[in-house]
Amino acid sequence: MTNIDSAYLKEFTSRIFTGMGCPATEAETAAECLNQADLRGVDSHGVARLSGYVRLWELKRLNATPIMKIIHETPSTAVLDGDLGLGLVTAPHAMQIAIEKARIAGTGWVAVQNSNHYGIAGFHAMMALQHDMIGISMTNASPLVAPTFSRSRFLGTNPIAVAIPALNQPPFIIDMATTTVANGKLEVLQRKGQDAPLGWTQDKDGNPTTDAYSLKKGGSMLPLGGDREHGGHKGYCLGAMVDIFSAVLSGANYGPWVPPFVSFLEPPTHQVGNGIGHFLGAIRVDAFRPASEFKEHMDNWIQTFRNAEPASGQERVLIPGDPEREITADRLKNGIPLHEQVIKDLEELGKKFGVDFHATPVNPY
Amino acid sequence: MTNIDSAYLKEFTSRIFTGMGCPATEAETAAECLNQADLRGVDSHGVARLSGYVRLWELKRLNATPIMKIIHETPSTAVLDGDLGLGLVTAPHAMQIAIEKARIAGTGWVAVQNSNHYGIAGFHAMMALQHDMIGISMTNASPLVAPTFSRSRFLGTNPIAVAIPALNQPPFIIDMATTTVANGKLEVLQRKGQDAPLGWTQDKDGNPTTDAYSLKKGGSMLPLGGDREHGGHKGYCLGAMVDIFSAVLSGANYGPWVPPFVSFLEPPTHQVGNGIGHFLGAIRVDAFRPASEFKEHMDNWIQTFRNAEPASGQERVLIPGDPEREITADRLKNGIPLHEQVIKDLEELGKKFGVDFHATPVNPY
Repeated sequence: MTNIDSAYLKEFTSRIFTGMGCPATEAETAAECLNQADLRGVDSHGVARLSGYVRLWELKRLNATPIMKIIHETPSTAVLDGDLGLGLVTAPHAMQIAIEKARIAGTGWVAVQNSNHYGIAGFHAMMALQHDMIGISMTNASPLVAPTFSRSRFLGTNPIAVAIPALNQPPFIIDMATTTVANGKLEVLQRKGQDAPLGWTQDKDGNPTTDAYSLKKGGSMLPLGGDREHGGHKGYCLGAMVDIFSAVLSGANYGPWVPPFVSFLEPPTHQVGNGIGHFLGAIRVDAFRPASEFKEHMDNWIQTFRNAEPASGQERVLIPGDPEREITADRLKNGIPLHEQVIKDLEELGKKFGVDFHATPVNPY
Repeated sequence: MTNIDSAYLKEFTSRIFTGMGCPATEAETAAECLNQADLRGVDSHGVARLSGYVRLWELKRLNATPIMKIIHETPSTAVLDGDLGLGLVTAPHAMQIAIEKARIAGTGWVAVQNSNHYGIAGFHAMMALQHDMIGISMTNASPLVAPTFSRSRFLGTNPIAVAIPALNQPPFIIDMATTTVANGKLEVLQRKGQDAPLGWTQDKDGNPTTDAYSLKKGGSMLPLGGDREHGGHKGYCLGAMVDIFSAVLSGANYGPWVPPFVSFLEPPTHQVGNGIGHFLGAIRVDAFRPASEFKEHMDNWIQTFRNAEPASGQERVLIPGDPEREITADRLKNGIPLHEQVIKDLEELGKKFGVDFHATPVNPY
């Protein structure tokens, strides 16, 4: 691992997207989205994924210069055709439309079709905060997750993000996959040579397993809750809901038809919609009660829960968003830790687009 | 257990609510809500709870003749003051407002304050289906659940329901507590003298436990996922979101201030809002794409997932709503199974309100 300055990484990322042909402001938004993932500790969705987007673009499965358009709308809703653009660009665009609608109608809800992987869900939801709005963001994703009682990979990790503003307290931010864990946690165990807890994945026949490599052997991830006895059917419900909101409402591909992010897997030949789908929402707080009043109560909510009695052996109780904020503070100061393979990837990308990658390691800690 | 005809129970329930002073149509709605719980197999939220509502009314913690009013609104939102009415009445009223708003604005979102326990979440969400709308329903509830890393009971089982229409397939219906299990499942284990699986509850110090009586000994329920390793922090996020949407947006009590349903517990003397809170939403499907097109794709979604490969040892894969629908078909025919204690309760209620309870047991199976 080498720590690289986060601002440098963002600038580099933006130049790669510009190199692909993205307009400057869109390249900057996309770079900001990947950079926020790195800063918030979601390493799998940050700059490490940049070469993946480039490969999809090279295969023409991603359009660097999309002409996005609203294909249907009402006062509080819209459907956006993303023209096969980067989700890192189409989702913020959709969120902006949701915010504009919320200004007038109280809430705004935009379903996106014909898009690609949109990075971390939380980035888009957090756009609403500065407008005293609650932001909601969800997306479907490449199928890796089995419905309860099944061994078919029919759902993605289908995340849900919700960002809620507070007054003096930091905002309340949920950003969660609807599975027990994200794939990245399995990779950590693989590197350590450790087994996975029961409830994370199942083998190819749908049996419980602790094999950290089960996904690579045809197994599947389990919905939040794990098996039926531990409420896994509820995680299945949530993942299914995200799939339907993101893709059946928008006209994108759903379930097993969602095109894979990785370039070495071909998209299904038969399609039931266009690209992958997202669903973004903005709720104006003062469409319900005065924003100052709401935010004062959010401060009270947050302080109350932060002061809950810790369980035996625990030091403190966290508020959604706390862990990511602490990582951000650290990484802004000490840089983003990157694997040598990621750095090699970035150097190669730099060569490809004539953008020198000459990062000086930050001396961390 | 004795099986009682469901239509008879509904009629009886309605007459008890009328006896409390509820207007006839409201009594009927409330009775229908409890009846649907029984028909869908959510025994804890059906007629077994009728005497609980009566006790709250006797203590004047529930108003049988509420004058509900909209205290704030925008084209797609409203806040309803439930005037301390039955949640079984205020929530359907709020859902009706949401549906009306969705007709014009595309979506409608109503937060309710000053309400009481609203029965099963799914009943209210399902009201949207006949209008080709997606229904969403959530509520906060008496605190029994500890945030991750805590031993404080700060959240309710805070359910989320989502009802989505299909064409020839039955609708897709989620109705789930944001905890690993509902309290009723612990009571089943207690009757059988069995232990609970790890991940359902914790003891009063916040340690893992398999004691099915842990809640009665000062322990707490765990959010969906169970402990941190199995994603319990995600269930905590969901329960917290439901609390904030239902109560901080509406101006109701949240977190530890939510008044208890059971009459033997006093509400907190200090309050941070009015009554308990709900959040209802209606999304017009054709605010996104033609309803027929959406519903055809829902049929395809449902059929695809129902035909997923069963895991080893499983016979079939279920769609959200399937299990409840099967129970309904059975109970419509064979009656609602009631414990002798519940029947005794109903007989006493009948005496109190001059409504004879003379149910003839259905001969089941």
